[in-house]
Amino acid sequence: MKSFVEVPPESHFPLQNLPYGVFEPVDGDGGPRIGVAIGEHVLDLSAIAVAGLFDGPILTGSDCFFQPSMNVFLGMGRPAWKEARATIQKLLSVDEPTLRDNASLREKSLWPMSKVRMLLPIVIGDYTDFFSSMHHAKNCGTIFRGPENPIPQNWFHLPIAYHGRASSIVISGTDVVRPRGQGHPSGNSPPSFGPSQKLDFELEMAAVVGPGNKLGESIDVDKAADHIFGLVLMNDWSARDIQAWEYVPLGPFLGKSFGTTISPWIVTLEALEPFSCDAPKQEPHPLPYLEEKISRNYDIPLEVWIKPAKHQHPSIVTKSNFKNLYWTLTQQVAHHTINGCNLRPGDLLGTGTISGSEDESLGCLLELSWNGKKPLFLNGTERRFLEDGDEVTFTACCKGNGYSVGFGTCSGRVLPAVP
Amino acid sequence: MKSFVEVPPESHFPLQNLPYGVFEPVDGDGGPRIGVAIGEHVLDLSAIAVAGLFDGPILTGSDCFFQPSMNVFLGMGRPAWKEARATIQKLLSVDEPTLRDNASLREKSLWPMSKVRMLLPIVIGDYTDFFSSMHHAKNCGTIFRGPENPIPQNWFHLPIAYHGRASSIVISGTDVVRPRGQGHPSGNSPPSFGPSQKLDFELEMAAVVGPGNKLGESIDVDKAADHIFGLVLMNDWSARDIQAWEYVPLGPFLGKSFGTTISPWIVTLEALEPFSCDAPKQEPHPLPYLEEKISRNYDIPLEVWIKPAKHQHPSIVTKSNFKNLYWTLTQQVAHHTINGCNLRPGDLLGTGTISGSEDESLGCLLELSWNGKKPLFLNGTERRFLEDGDEVTFTACCKGNGYSVGFGTCSGRVLPAVP
Repeated sequence: MKSFVEVPPESHFPLQNLPYGVFEPVDGDGGPRIGVAIGEHVLDLSAIAVAGLFDGPILTGSDCFFQPSMNVFLGMGRPAWKEARATIQKLLSVDEPTLRDNASLREKSLWPMSKVRMLLPIVIGDYTDFFSSMHHAKNCGTIFRGPENPIPQNWFHLPIAYHGRASSIVISGTDVVRPRGQGHPSGNSPPSFGPSQKLDFELEMAAVVGPGNKLGESIDVDKAADHIFGLVLMNDWSARDIQAWEYVPLGPFLGKSFGTTISPWIVTLEALEPFSCDAPKQEPHPLPYLEEKISRNYDIPLEVWIKPAKHQHPSIVTKSNFKNLYWTLTQQVAHHTINGCNLRPGDLLGTGTISGSEDESLGCLLELSWNGKKPLFLNGTERRFLEDGDEVTFTACCKGNGYSVGFGTCSGRVLPAVP
Repeated sequence: MKSFVEVPPESHFPLQNLPYGVFEPVDGDGGPRIGVAIGEHVLDLSAIAVAGLFDGPILTGSDCFFQPSMNVFLGMGRPAWKEARATIQKLLSVDEPTLRDNASLREKSLWPMSKVRMLLPIVIGDYTDFFSSMHHAKNCGTIFRGPENPIPQNWFHLPIAYHGRASSIVISGTDVVRPRGQGHPSGNSPPSFGPSQKLDFELEMAAVVGPGNKLGESIDVDKAADHIFGLVLMNDWSARDIQAWEYVPLGPFLGKSFGTTISPWIVTLEALEPFSCDAPKQEPHPLPYLEEKISRNYDIPLEVWIKPAKHQHPSIVTKSNFKNLYWTLTQQVAHHTINGCNLRPGDLLGTGTISGSEDESLGCLLELSWNGKKPLFLNGTERRFLEDGDEVTFTACCKGNGYSVGFGTCSGRVLPAVP
């Protein structure tokens, strides 16, 4: 499977991937439109639609690629997604002359990545964050509540989640301002106030919701995969001092809501299919509404790199994997809707921090530095939590036979707090 | 202050009120548009705008009243709100001939309430729910965690809140399906599963956000009132059994996300100004970012009525008041944004359940029946939690000198769970 568009050997974006994003030309030539990554280019789907090349039964005449966000296309569901993928894969293939031999159309539809700016690909109606890595739950419970019963009893029965803040979700490359807020009082003094002293990243991925369900109805766990379009990388920046003081009894709020970064390219479940693997055995056995015929995870190696302001190169701080998750994406969807809560196209479902069992696979500094007690060294520089100027970059890449299906990067730099 | 439009003496909507909503004609004659309530009529602001009667410096030529939601107008801020109010109050006044004596324009712009259907007035980007009544915090803490230290230490230092679900917010009159979900396991058995056995209402009000702030910036507490357009009634339906099992450690999720009902008319802060009163003294003294020059509450009497399916008339179950809140709306806004979290026009900030200190002023059945231990009687019928067919109605009305400024009603009926 090969494209006529050049794809460097280490590219995350060969013909097998075809992730979706929303971009605009950096020179201001027109507004946001939907594209698909191929090698170091972006295929402009609005140009392909104008040329009448989406000619399948569902997409002919559709305005879904003339939108500034993916939401309309997401709402159309898997049949439309399959049709689009088949059309795009054929168009870009080395054997297909339609686009390959049409210089004028190539000129209009293939943008070098250096000439475009990536934008948030979805209008996010609601953002939910799960808590689905057992290692992360255990480590956080031990740090915040002590080593006796670190994982709450409910954790093994349901995929715990909370509602996150949608307004502060930003695209990779956006700077993040260090938040101010309250921390625990010591003794009889009032709570501390000031810039967070425990700024952290959280290594997550997030599912982008497709059609969703009506209010009052539920999505069956065995049909839930049809409501997941694909995945992005997500950094759920966290201020651990603010979070630790505020979170009882209603959960995290300002410790999280100052910013969440997602990667620009949505990698579809279809592209990830070759990397699917069995999900972990669940004991105790889940209730019937969470019991699924096929319980599937994905083998997606994940990395986190930090580049301090004065360093020339980033240093790796963790290597984890999506398959470390205990609860599956489909169980998350079934649980989220069992009470009748409606999911809408473009909703975002974070996995929660993806930590593995090894010391080198922990998904946040809270765990890596054990709440600041054990420093890390980045090419000789000590880190317990993030410092101003630090740039945090996540990346993920599945290795196939002679090709990769990758997510590109999700990065952000810490700016000093407002004075 | 009198209108040429008839306003019955007990009406919530005299010329002093002028609350905003979004409506559509029941006969299908045109789509959603913005209106203002006057007596038993709605003034169609799109018709007034078409007639060129918004002729002040800010609103001349604006498209803000040609929208299907209030969001554009909300984003314009207090100067636009003041100008619109002055224009509308003058137009509807008994002494002003412009509309009074123009039969054709009256025909186009004044709709009897019986001929319109009210819709959600805002596109809600994010919904936040606070926890600002001390009596409610104390009662819930006692019920869920026991009588020792029922109120967490942080409660007196910050207005605790959590992110709620925006997708399931519905307009008054929408039925609410009883949610299904998990409840606490007993002994060694697995968690229970089925329709919630502890379905509850929560008596709340909610603030509708105006311009808001950019990500990374904060709103000063003394300027926060300019970011609040007005208030609605809100029923934050709650499933106490689901909530009690799921809420540790990340807060309420499915116990709340199946439905939240708001009243259709947004009563502006300007209309509520005559009913402002001092906020409670706060001890310990709040941190500087929460300390305000004028700390203001509103004297808004609130009532909850329940009508069981077989009853002809509703029975009153509680009488509370907005002034029971400990944290002010402006402190909520300042706290919400102190970490740089951005508020957007149309965001909704719930107050949390508004309970008073008296047995008759408790804002939910969890408190009124003390978690089901102490039944209420509705005209002879016992209630511990809500039953299928129950219709719950909130109302609120401030009594002025010879007039009322009211909120109308916020109501919803419980439908049986999905089988």
